This record gives sequence, C-alpha cells and structure tokens, in this order.
Amino acid sequence: MPQRIGQYTVATPSRPALLSYAAAVGNKEGDGPLGSCFDYIAEDTTMGRGSWEQAESMLQKTAVQIALKKIDLAARQIDLIFAGDLLNQCIGSTFGLRDFGIPLIGLFGACSTMALSLLNAALAVDAGAARYAVAVTSSHFCSAERQFRQPLDYGGQRPPTAQWTVTGAGACVVGHGEGIAVEALTPGRVVDLGIKDANNMGAAMAPAAADTILRFLKDTGTEPGDYDRIFTGDLGVIGSRLLCELLDKEGIDLRAVHRDCGVMIFDRERQDVHAGGSGCGCSASVLCAHILPEMAAGRLKNVLFCATGALMSPTSSQQGESIPGIAHLVHLRA
Amino acid sequence: MPQRIGQYTVATPSRPALLSYAAAVGNKEGDGPLGSCFDYIAEDTTMGRGSWEQAESMLQKTAVQIALKKIDLAARQIDLIFAGDLLNQCIGSTFGLRDFGIPLIGLFGACSTMALSLLNAALAVDAGAARYAVAVTSSHFCSAERQFRQPLDYGGQRPPTAQWTVTGAGACVVGHGEGIAVEALTPGRVVDLGIKDANNMGAAMAPAAADTILRFLKDTGTEPGDYDRIFTGDLGVIGSRLLCELLDKEGIDLRAVHRDCGVMIFDRERQDVHAGGSGCGCSASVLCAHILPEMAAGRLKNVLFCATGALMSPTSSQQGESIPGIAHLVHLRA
Repeated sequence: MPQRIGQYTVATPSRPALLSYAAAVGNKEGDGPLGSCFDYIAEDTTMGRGSWEQAESMLQKTAVQIALKKIDLAARQIDLIFAGDLLNQCIGSTFGLRDFGIPLIGLFGACSTMALSLLNAALAVDAGAARYAVAVTSSHFCSAERQFRQPLDYGGQRPPTAQWTVTGAGACVVGHGEGIAVEALTPGRVVDLGIKDANNMGAAMAPAAADTILRFLKDTGTEPGDYDRIFTGDLGVIGSRLLCELLDKEGIDLRAVHRDCGVMIFDRERQDVHAGGSGCGCSASVLCAHILPEMAAGRLKNVLFCATGALMSPTSSQQGESIPGIAHLVHLRA
Repeated sequence: MPQRIGQYTVATPSRPALLSYAAAVGNKEGDGPLGSCFDYIAEDTTMGRGSWEQAESMLQKTAVQIALKKIDLAARQIDLIFAGDLLNQCIGSTFGLRDFGIPLIGLFGACSTMALSLLNAALAVDAGAARYAVAVTSSHFCSAERQFRQPLDYGGQRPPTAQWTVTGAGACVVGHGEGIAVEALTPGRVVDLGIKDANNMGAAMAPAAADTILRFLKDTGTEPGDYDRIFTGDLGVIGSRLLCELLDKEGIDLRAVHRDCGVMIFDRERQDVHAGGSGCGCSASVLCAHILPEMAAGRLKNVLFCATGALMSPTSSQQGESIPGIAHLVHLRA
C-alpha cells in the first residue's frame, strides 16, 4: 500500500515489479546504437498501414503484444492499461489498444508519458486496484512532425537545437512477482520558465526535470551518488547541459550518473538528429530495450527514471504562449 | 485501501469523500435550466482573455480556486491534481493549472474525463497516495468547435443529431472527511461499434456506456432499481435512447432512474442545441452544480455517475476511422 515520503514522493512498499517489457521501433532507431536491443524493428515508416498515425498505433499494439507474450499473459488478465501519446486526442493509444478490451486509463504527459504511465501502473498494483497493469506509450517521427511542425514534404531546415522524434513504443507489465521493482515515485509539476522556441524542447523541459529530481532527492534524503544511474527522458544534449547547470546552483552535481535517453538512442555524428531524440517513444523504448535489461543483467541496480514532457500545442505556441514542462520520476531497483 | 470486486470494479472502502466542488460555466449554460446552480457564470466567451483556449484555461482555474476556497485549503495542501480536457495536448489543463504548483497527473478521456479524474483521485486518496486530490476538467464551445468541426465564422448547418459543446469546468476536492463518498468505480474500456458520423457522438458513445454500466451491475450484483439515479455524461437524447435500447437487450430497464447530463444542462426547446450538451465540461459542471448538491441536500442518496467519451480526432476521422467510445463509472453515496 502506497506511503507518502516527505512532501511529494510516494513509496510503493509492496514492490510492484516490472514482470515483462518490450520495445518496438522504426528502422532509423534500429540502425542506432541500441539497434540490437529492440524486440521489434519495423521495415519502413508505415508498417504496411494506410497512414503514419495507424503505424504508430501498430507500434503500441506490437509492444504490448510482445510484452504479454514474454510472460504468457492474456489481455483479459490485465486489469488496467495506462496509456497515452503525443497525437491529438491520443489516437495512437486509443486505436492501438482498442482490440485488447482492457480497461484503459488514458493519460497525457507529452514525452513524459512512459514515467507517468509506469508511475500510475505501479501505484495501482501497490494499492491492490490492479493485479496486473500495463504501462505503454508511443511516438512516430512522421505523425509528430506533421502535427507539431511542418508537412514532411516541405523539407524545412532544422536548427541545431531541434530534436528528432523517435518512432517507437515501449510497454511494461507491472504486477507482484520476480522482477525489477518500483520502490518510489515523484509525480511532476508544471514548470514554465518562459521558453517559447518549439525547436528547443530540451531547454523548455530541463527546469521541470531539475524540479522533480530535486524534490525526490530531498524527500528521500539521498544524493546522486546513491544511484547507479539517473536517466532523463529526452532532454537531448542542450537540455542535459542545462539540467546539470540548474542542479549545480543547488549544490548538486549530476554529471557522473546522469544519462539522457534522447542522447543514447541515436548516433548524433552519423544519424543527423541534431540535439538528440525526443517523443514519448524515446524514453519508453530506451527503458524497455536498454535500461531494464541492463538492470536484469545485474549491471545496474539502483536507478532513477525521470521522463520529461513539453506541454505546449501548436495552438498555444501560435497564440504566443511559452512552453510548460513536466517531469515524472520512478525509482527502480533490481 | 482499494479492493477489487468481481472482474472489473474496484471498491474504495475508506470512503474517500468529495469534500468540496465547484462549477464555472459560460453565459449560455448560465441561461439554461441549471443556471441558478453554478458557482461562476462568465459574462462572455472570452472571459477577457486573448483567445477561447485561454478562456477555457481560466474556467478550469476558476473552478479549482472556488472549490479550494470553499473548504479553505491552499494549493500547496493538495498532493495530486488529476486533469484533462478536449483540446489538443490538453492545453486547457496545462495552462489553467500551471500556476498552482500542484503535482499533475494529466489524463485523456475526451468527454469522460470528469469520471476518469474523479475515479483516479478517489483511488489515490483511498490508497494513501494522496491526502487531498483534486479532479478537474473543462470544455469550451468555441475552442472545441474550431478544433473538431469548423471555424465558427463559417456558420455551418448543424444536423439534428449534433450536440452542443458545453462551455464550463467542474472541480472536486477528494479527501477523507465528511461528504459524499466514492464507494466504488469501474474503469471504462474502448468500445467501437463502427459509428463514423462525428455529428452523432451520442450513438458512438452509447455502447461504451452500456458496457460499463453492465460490468458494474454484474460485478456488484445490483440492478438499476437499487440506485436513486444513474447519470450518464453527455449522450444527449439520441445516445440516451440507444443506451436504453442496448440495455433492454440485456434484460435491464434503465429508464426509470436514468438521466443524462447532456439533456439536463440546456433547454432544448429554447436554446437550439439539437440533441443536447456535450464536452468534458458538461458532465463536470452538472456533477458539481447539480448532482452533488442534490446529494448533499439529501434528495439523492445512491448514485452512479458514468461519463462518456468519444475518442476520435479530426485526423482519425479524415482517415476513415470509426469513433471509439469509452465510459468511466463512479459510485457515489451520500
């Protein structure tokens, strides 16, 4: 049963475990440094579907199917599925999960959704509201680019601060049993320091990551050195640098243990992604294909997973609003 | 601590209570049959803001502020806020709640969001993950119309099956103490019978409402006659009729106790809303301004609140997809 620690953090003493996990990605991600880790790599951007949006739904469906199959669970055994994505009205999740018949808690946390869904799934299992819960999210470069920026055919120049939306999905099955455990979680707050450049998401999200990591460390009385790794979602190189600088001001040096999923998923020299990867599917696929397997193999034991999201829409940006950020954190232990 | 009942329902035995609630609406809603019940009625559609989207954010902020003020709680005393809305990337919630500094669980359930947020807030309080949690959602006729249908200036003809998106927001503060209690909840599943007409949302959502109500009644071994009222979110007149017909086939007659928030909020003869009201703010404002006060006054004691959502986007509809529905249910007792 969940217990509050400090002002913001919730411990999950029954240790809900990540019993299974899977990542399905596009071919560019498959060609990146983590290429050998993914459970499924699509041959092209459409996965044989009529639209990129439908392809994104297929990625989400595929990740869930593989995660369920790995532990031989049927969809009807899952009490709750927590899901969301970047598309308007979260159609990646709605249509991707439609056929499973699992009760659905729809979420919106932009690129922070993997931590948001995992946080909620762990809470539900710890509280006894679900025996098995699934956390899943996705993003797709093509569906995101045309929704948030420009038609792909336009071929607009991308500034060096821009990030590349990952085509991918990650899914985790949470329940009681053997596996990497969720020990605690810190839900994010909206943090907005006034950044307005939609081509510099890392800078917009870094203050939210700093806020959440600080609140977690304070609530638990721990410091970065207590963890093998502190992963952020998709700050990219610019946001990562800003995060470290923001925490420097608080007397906290994150550099030795910090890694960013957006920096890890692509080879920036070779894959022309500028500041790194982004999108809900970025931290989701890196979590499921790299972080959790590394923990299962015993190479990482004590890990913070802090996914970050930029909460603007094209409409809010066109209306001159700044970009609010949010970051949700989950403490994992092997 | 939450306990599962039957296959789909979760009981909340600590009886998390709706300690406070408030509704803020637009002037058309204020001119309707429930006009005297709302806590705040805006003078015009912009609330003095630069856009309808910003006005929607203000409605959500206003509802939360009034609900907190009624029980003299400060924002920093709220552990979690569960919020979502119809706008792309849920900017009604993000920008409306930005200044509170409360940890935010972003939700997406289209027009089912009031039940979805209340369900999650009750679970969090029952589980001890939050001492106080807020559930809130909003919609705005003008921001929804131009996002989902046509520019307002276009003046398109509305078919008789169309519903009118409510301009309004509702917020509930959930915690332990005196008040109407959440006894149980049934999360919704995606149900899609193939309806494709975006001007007939009631028909698209009715099967989901039937599915959730049936699952709740089966899990709890109860029947409609056991409740003073069973409220649906915003099926309107056409969806309500379909819901009753769908349940007839299961041998269940809902008519004596069924009411629909979309039918209740407007005077259909006088206010030209065709099949009734819709939008997240419809069931949210009717819940907070009418249903809960009726329960507090002792006129209703045992109530099911089942809000319904249509999970399509303009993109999915343009791509020829059907409209999936979802309905989340909360069992309330005075």
